[in-house]
Amino acid sequence: MDMNTFFKNAIDGLKEAGNYRVFCDLERKSGAFPRALRHRADGSTQDVTVWCSNDYLGMGQHPVVTAAMKEAIDRCGAGAGGTRNISGTNHYHVELERELADLHGKESALIFTSGYVSNWAALGTLASKIPSIIVYSDALNHASMIEGIRHARCEKRIFKHNSPEDLRRQMAADDPSRPKLVAFESVYSMDGDIAPIAEFCDVADEFGAMTYLDEVHAVGLYGSRGGGVAEREGVMDRLTVIEGTLGKAYGVMGGYIAASSLLCDFVRSFASGFIFTTALPPSLAAGAAASIRHLKASELERAKQRRNVEKLRARLDAHGIPHLPNPSHIVPVMVKNAAKCKFLSDLLLDNYGIYVQPINYPTVPVGTERLRFTPTPLHTDADIDHLVGALNDLWSRCALAREVA
Amino acid sequence: MDMNTFFKNAIDGLKEAGNYRVFCDLERKSGAFPRALRHRADGSTQDVTVWCSNDYLGMGQHPVVTAAMKEAIDRCGAGAGGTRNISGTNHYHVELERELADLHGKESALIFTSGYVSNWAALGTLASKIPSIIVYSDALNHASMIEGIRHARCEKRIFKHNSPEDLRRQMAADDPSRPKLVAFESVYSMDGDIAPIAEFCDVADEFGAMTYLDEVHAVGLYGSRGGGVAEREGVMDRLTVIEGTLGKAYGVMGGYIAASSLLCDFVRSFASGFIFTTALPPSLAAGAAASIRHLKASELERAKQRRNVEKLRARLDAHGIPHLPNPSHIVPVMVKNAAKCKFLSDLLLDNYGIYVQPINYPTVPVGTERLRFTPTPLHTDADIDHLVGALNDLWSRCALAREVA
Repeated sequence: MDMNTFFKNAIDGLKEAGNYRVFCDLERKSGAFPRALRHRADGSTQDVTVWCSNDYLGMGQHPVVTAAMKEAIDRCGAGAGGTRNISGTNHYHVELERELADLHGKESALIFTSGYVSNWAALGTLASKIPSIIVYSDALNHASMIEGIRHARCEKRIFKHNSPEDLRRQMAADDPSRPKLVAFESVYSMDGDIAPIAEFCDVADEFGAMTYLDEVHAVGLYGSRGGGVAEREGVMDRLTVIEGTLGKAYGVMGGYIAASSLLCDFVRSFASGFIFTTALPPSLAAGAAASIRHLKASELERAKQRRNVEKLRARLDAHGIPHLPNPSHIVPVMVKNAAKCKFLSDLLLDNYGIYVQPINYPTVPVGTERLRFTPTPLHTDADIDHLVGALNDLWSRCALAREVA
Repeated sequence: MDMNTFFKNAIDGLKEAGNYRVFCDLERKSGAFPRALRHRADGSTQDVTVWCSNDYLGMGQHPVVTAAMKEAIDRCGAGAGGTRNISGTNHYHVELERELADLHGKESALIFTSGYVSNWAALGTLASKIPSIIVYSDALNHASMIEGIRHARCEKRIFKHNSPEDLRRQMAADDPSRPKLVAFESVYSMDGDIAPIAEFCDVADEFGAMTYLDEVHAVGLYGSRGGGVAEREGVMDRLTVIEGTLGKAYGVMGGYIAASSLLCDFVRSFASGFIFTTALPPSLAAGAAASIRHLKASELERAKQRRNVEKLRARLDAHGIPHLPNPSHIVPVMVKNAAKCKFLSDLLLDNYGIYVQPINYPTVPVGTERLRFTPTPLHTDADIDHLVGALNDLWSRCALAREVA
């Protein structure tokens, strides 16, 4: 087999299906978020407004975050210089882990190089090391959780998305003496729906199972201190593990788990993806800690974001532009066709300076293709008006279906 | 099963075997590398000299690197704000990938959040997607390569460490029509030995196999532009994939592969660990690019490092302190006992202000425990004298065996 032909055919297959990804080459502008400079392939540039960032609150340019990062660079330099065990633990890591344990009301926390790695390594380690464990995984869990569970090669059950009933049915059918772990997310990134956390905990308690909650699209955003949906609903103490990211609402990079000291120490001691990798740069740990501290105290960003989410939804409704209703900050405008979704995204970018990535298969099922908008506190009323005006134009021009709100 | 008891027993097992890791809580001092401040558990602090960092050339505090990072923070903020596909590609990523492709003389490069993830994702994707592939893996390959191959669930053969003969023997026994990939490292981190890259390429060519070379302990350090051992030996063009890190000699964080445009595009398009994770912060990409550019042009750091490595070895030899001979920059002083290794490390730290982490099982085989020293260009002659003096004291005090050089 000629490998180049193999690679080319695979890529051509993606192109034909409309699933080939072309990255938008951006230059974020600190101090002007959500504005960015787009670099086109021909070398020219264009000013754009970003409408699909996971820097949900604009903390990626907040002065307390950038100042903390620069101060850490001045004090400690660029990188950590080693794995956590071999010279790579910096005092900023220790402080960040304390900040995270406090955020979630847990004894301990453990940071990883990304949210992806935290899910993969923590679930992979727990599920491979605990003898005869059964993992119950929500049908829409993120790729990183699926990979962690797959890595473990343990027995697993997939339960219907956000269905405590299906979870209970499957748990009741299993051997009561076997260890069990339920893995799910709070806010699902593409539909923006929210898990019934307390009900999942009820089922888990009934069968003596551990619970593992991924709050990556919720930390910083929900709860009076930004502890996530579990904080808002007063159930943080019922979860065995809360997993989160430093790369979305906190605006930096990295992932973590918060749990009992014993559990964190166990993962710390056995997870290959934690042990054998260079630690986060001190500057990222410092920036993330500053961001967490700020969002523990400040409600301003969350309130402004909620207001902008509501405003965008109301304006879309006024024009009959269909969007998926949900109780979160994510506004999916449903196009339901891969080619049209890409076409709309291209027109928004080229003709209106609005950057929103088309979300196609395999990220979402075929027939549910969408433009996923994430209003931040830093989008202005004029930004929202411009966006809805553009969508309204395109909806007419492309004869797309409207909905009566 | 009570989970807390399970976790506690597992951790107690590590403690009893002498394999429980206690992280040294350090504060790196930019401008004073390899000096750092150690935070003790009781809250007190101590000045120490780091002797086990993988910031091999001290680039983690080089002004061109830290200035580039701070400038990127000022221009673009803290984090990337999304995955590479969804608003997270920053112009600094594009420039870094060009810099890396140029470094290795390849058409293209692809960056990942860490070297670990680059191995796991790239090998995992190639080996799972190419039908009927057989992967040939060096017996001492890093955990991240092993995990990538394991993820793929492909057929694999483990060949004797650094043995082209064993590789040939195993390849000759396999179906000539099946796709094949040989995965190995250039510099092995714990023994510091170097692979016979050209001979491996000869065998691979004989059987039409692809080659995948991990140069994480070599990039920046070997070759006239820091392209690694393959550059030094003039064989970069014979390798299908060169994988490297931005977190060791380059002093920052992140990993990458360099290869043909088709191969990079294939991994970019299919690797879960690339697609579904937040991109590196612009500041890390900027710092890494600055570091690579600097080490392409400057031989100063490499020359000074080689001189310090030679000096340390000569001084150890003069005192009969046994160290593993090897052709690299890594100086493993052999203790060959886990408890003694930890004991020596503790005494060096507490009594001499010398920080070197004990390397015990499972990182190295039982009976080969060692102190792994990594002299940098920034260690002074006085540092080397102080270290060798301390080792000499301890060798006498602990009645450890000496060797005639």
